Amino acid sequence: MNNIERDFDKLFNPRSVAVVGASNTLGKWGFNMPMNMIGGGYRGEIHMVNPREERVLGFPAYSSLADIDAEVDLLVVAIPARGVTEVLAEAAAKGIRNAVVVSSNFGEVGEEGMRLERHLAEVASQAGITIVGPNTMGIYSKTSNLCCLGAPVFPLKGGVGFISQSGNLGVQLMTWGYRKGVGFSRFVGSGNAANTDISDWLEYLGDDPETDTVILYIEGIKDGRRFLEVARRITPHKPVIALKAGKGRQGERAVLSHSGSLAGPFELFRGAMEQAGIVEAETTEELVDLAAAFSSLPVPRGARVGVMTLGGGWGVAAADSFDREGLELAVLPDEVIAELDGFLPSFWSRRNPVDIVGNVQRRNHYRVLDLLATCDEVDMLITMGTLLGRDFWLENLFKTAVRPFLGMLLHRTSMLPFFQLSLWKGFRDSLTRRGGEHNPEGSGGINPTEALKWTDSALVRRLKQLMEQERKPIIAVAVNEGESSASFRMRNSGVFTATTPERAVRVAGKLARYSRFISERRSEDTATLPPASGPSFPR
Amino acid sequence: MNNIERDFDKLFNPRSVAVVGASNTLGKWGFNMPMNMIGGGYRGEIHMVNPREERVLGFPAYSSLADIDAEVDLLVVAIPARGVTEVLAEAAAKGIRNAVVVSSNFGEVGEEGMRLERHLAEVASQAGITIVGPNTMGIYSKTSNLCCLGAPVFPLKGGVGFISQSGNLGVQLMTWGYRKGVGFSRFVGSGNAANTDISDWLEYLGDDPETDTVILYIEGIKDGRRFLEVARRITPHKPVIALKAGKGRQGERAVLSHSGSLAGPFELFRGAMEQAGIVEAETTEELVDLAAAFSSLPVPRGARVGVMTLGGGWGVAAADSFDREGLELAVLPDEVIAELDGFLPSFWSRRNPVDIVGNVQRRNHYRVLDLLATCDEVDMLITMGTLLGRDFWLENLFKTAVRPFLGMLLHRTSMLPFFQLSLWKGFRDSLTRRGGEHNPEGSGGINPTEALKWTDSALVRRLKQLMEQERKPIIAVAVNEGESSASFRMRNSGVFTATTPERAVRVAGKLARYSRFISERRSEDTATLPPASGPSFPR
Repeated sequence: MNNIERDFDKLFNPRSVAVVGASNTLGKWGFNMPMNMIGGGYRGEIHMVNPREERVLGFPAYSSLADIDAEVDLLVVAIPARGVTEVLAEAAAKGIRNAVVVSSNFGEVGEEGMRLERHLAEVASQAGITIVGPNTMGIYSKTSNLCCLGAPVFPLKGGVGFISQSGNLGVQLMTWGYRKGVGFSRFVGSGNAANTDISDWLEYLGDDPETDTVILYIEGIKDGRRFLEVARRITPHKPVIALKAGKGRQGERAVLSHSGSLAGPFELFRGAMEQAGIVEAETTEELVDLAAAFSSLPVPRGARVGVMTLGGGWGVAAADSFDREGLELAVLPDEVIAELDGFLPSFWSRRNPVDIVGNVQRRNHYRVLDLLATCDEVDMLITMGTLLGRDFWLENLFKTAVRPFLGMLLHRTSMLPFFQLSLWKGFRDSLTRRGGEHNPEGSGGINPTEALKWTDSALVRRLKQLMEQERKPIIAVAVNEGESSASFRMRNSGVFTATTPERAVRVAGKLARYSRFISERRSEDTATLPPASGPSFPR
Repeated sequence: MNNIERDFDKLFNPRSVAVVGASNTLGKWGFNMPMNMIGGGYRGEIHMVNPREERVLGFPAYSSLADIDAEVDLLVVAIPARGVTEVLAEAAAKGIRNAVVVSSNFGEVGEEGMRLERHLAEVASQAGITIVGPNTMGIYSKTSNLCCLGAPVFPLKGGVGFISQSGNLGVQLMTWGYRKGVGFSRFVGSGNAANTDISDWLEYLGDDPETDTVILYIEGIKDGRRFLEVARRITPHKPVIALKAGKGRQGERAVLSHSGSLAGPFELFRGAMEQAGIVEAETTEELVDLAAAFSSLPVPRGARVGVMTLGGGWGVAAADSFDREGLELAVLPDEVIAELDGFLPSFWSRRNPVDIVGNVQRRNHYRVLDLLATCDEVDMLITMGTLLGRDFWLENLFKTAVRPFLGMLLHRTSMLPFFQLSLWKGFRDSLTRRGGEHNPEGSGGINPTEALKWTDSALVRRLKQLMEQERKPIIAVAVNEGESSASFRMRNSGVFTATTPERAVRVAGKLARYSRFISERRSEDTATLPPASGPSFPR
């Protein structure tokens, strides 16, 4: 059934789309899909089919597919289930090769729906039509601005290709990705997968030059052997990250009732995934984290991590999951310790995690990171408290300056002038001190000149340079700043920021595991592998 | 050493504070602490001690503590380590009972510092002075607006008492809490704990009427037996949530190098915590989640959860961690199924998780929740996609209305008037249809009248009513909305929203475990327990 010849280029780069069941009624699928195509900036032809309307969304409405006197590359079907097969027969006559069928009430609702779906698949396969769905939320393709989706999701453009066996979850995760700054190349909501299997899509994304990282949400797989074979061909040169649903007794049952898939014993599947070099995401949130990290960070050479922290507790929070994630706290050579002694307060931790005990001179943050990144004992870096983010600056301005002023004004009014005089005196003093002096007894306070020079963006630029130069991932952690700052940075500069130390460590653990897989595979069979060119960022 | 009589009332409600080492220099502790006290709105007397200044932050500066001719309830010390003991001797003479010592370079930096710290503790204990610290970030107290903290953190007022063995991590977690809408009653950064143990603070918070939920960040405990005894007295009527650091070999080592504590085998500690009814937080993020949940939700009667979801994938993502968290998907009685059949599309899941297959009529969301909450088979609820949040509305307005308009304007200009006519026709049609009609074949589309009536706030109000009436927790999950919407709701209405299904399920699991503990304890020794009045919200 699945041995039809695919023409996925026409699916992801269609010059024209026909929407059967196109509608002017708010909230209907036949309304949402073309609205989102228009909103997403699709530039090809759009043909609306609706026998009861003269125009749909301004376009002239055809009464049937056959009436369209132009070539159609992609068919979208949004009519009740019982009429879909007939439409596909018409599509066959027009030589259409791909159909996105959003209609539900097929295999997911019992025996009768299943019969309908099998018939649909037969008709389509005989005509060489690939069905996305039925019961799908649609597809997205970067190269043609094609937001052929049931929900108003307009992904950022990027290198992440996403196959999801839940449409709703898939489009929402793209929204999470959007908020975090993760860019997508393709999305396929595979729905009931009448005449496809996940491997068809995976194979396409593996070869797709627009895709440098593949993420999957999997409920069930028809042909597990083929899936693993396809994955094994891709993973040595392109990371594949999967969230496998159906964990435990209750998870399996939920999968069965959702997509009708047999999830199978999760532990078996996990083992197979690991063997195939597929990176496992354990939660929905982690799937997005890993998409962000793998599409923006170089793959490390090993599992030895240098950790820098402004405060000891965060170093502990990170180290706490090192054992679980198979990471090692890098052991710093004496000469690195000695260099750090040269500019950190005497009571810094003198080992990894490098606790710089609240030293707020940001030039020193960079010096520490530079030393760690260039150290041969370190494969990757986690830095906490270095970057501060917009929220932090705004909140901090209010908290450190405005609030005390208001406090004096309201509760100690007569003292206000003296308060301002004292502040001015202190500020003047701090301006005349020179930044960067070594103060072994303390953090050295804030030097405004230094703070203005080493802005977040200056630091981020240097981090990027350092990553490119040393080919080691640097993961920043937003312990000071809010989620939105971290997201903004990713969107703005492509530098990944984890929102907690534990999540940073999980990402680092997956990077290390993938690195181990790659080096094992490369040493096994160098000859048979494609060149490790991959995406533009060093990998 | 620890048998001194405490006067914690003077510590958390001081009428006057003296700051030794007060400074006008930006960024110094002696500058930050009083600035934050002023910014936090502390109304008592503040006395600045600095022999080299005439005024500090506008206040007249004394050259020594002895010179202050008024009573001092709380002493703050921010001078180098070697001078601290002498100041405490002076404090003893003035009858001061509590000192916050921020100075570092004590026990955390080796043998000499340790000797200094022991001497400091002896002097203090003999004089009956409780030391917070040394090496502390300070304390916070809601009742006196006392932000005696080294960082500009001004917590929301609420019922969460927080003891942290890392100052930096502690104040940052309060900032996370602030962003999420978690209110605090007290905070103690216990620092090196020269003459205190964590149990002293725990005991105080256990009796403190301002505190209804206690959270702990623990690196090490001096007297484990006492700690567990104290905890056991509190947990039956007030939840105690702990993040215990020092996991695995590398976590233990990091703790040792941070606070010098021996973390001890984590698994042993975990078992003891569970026996004492302490709820375990596994990550920093979860500590804040649990603080938010336990301080705002009623404790459920059992572990049977009703799940409602707009899309099946999210139901699976939730169910996937049910086994791990010891939760059960509630089995819905036939009469509940029949009632749901009455207004949901025919292809809804017809079991728990209740997948309402994209039904966007928000009146129906409430009807489902109402049916589940009043069902005897259900102990608590998780709802996904029901609440949408401000981000969602703003983003959606742009995505569903503005973007398609721009798309037409830019790429299909001549068709724009027809586009608008079609939209207007569709909108008018949807207005004339009546909301809430049962449409077994589909979601029924959007009814604008209904959407305007059932706003987020209307839904939240009904959820709160339902929770109070049924005394069952309802956990909303922000799958559509952003993190900031979820936080806003918590701040604004006190309704807890988890940001992912998995995190909602973790919270639910901890609630269920705590519920089990309480009912076991209550059935064991009802007579000896205090009345279960607790906080104002039904628990």
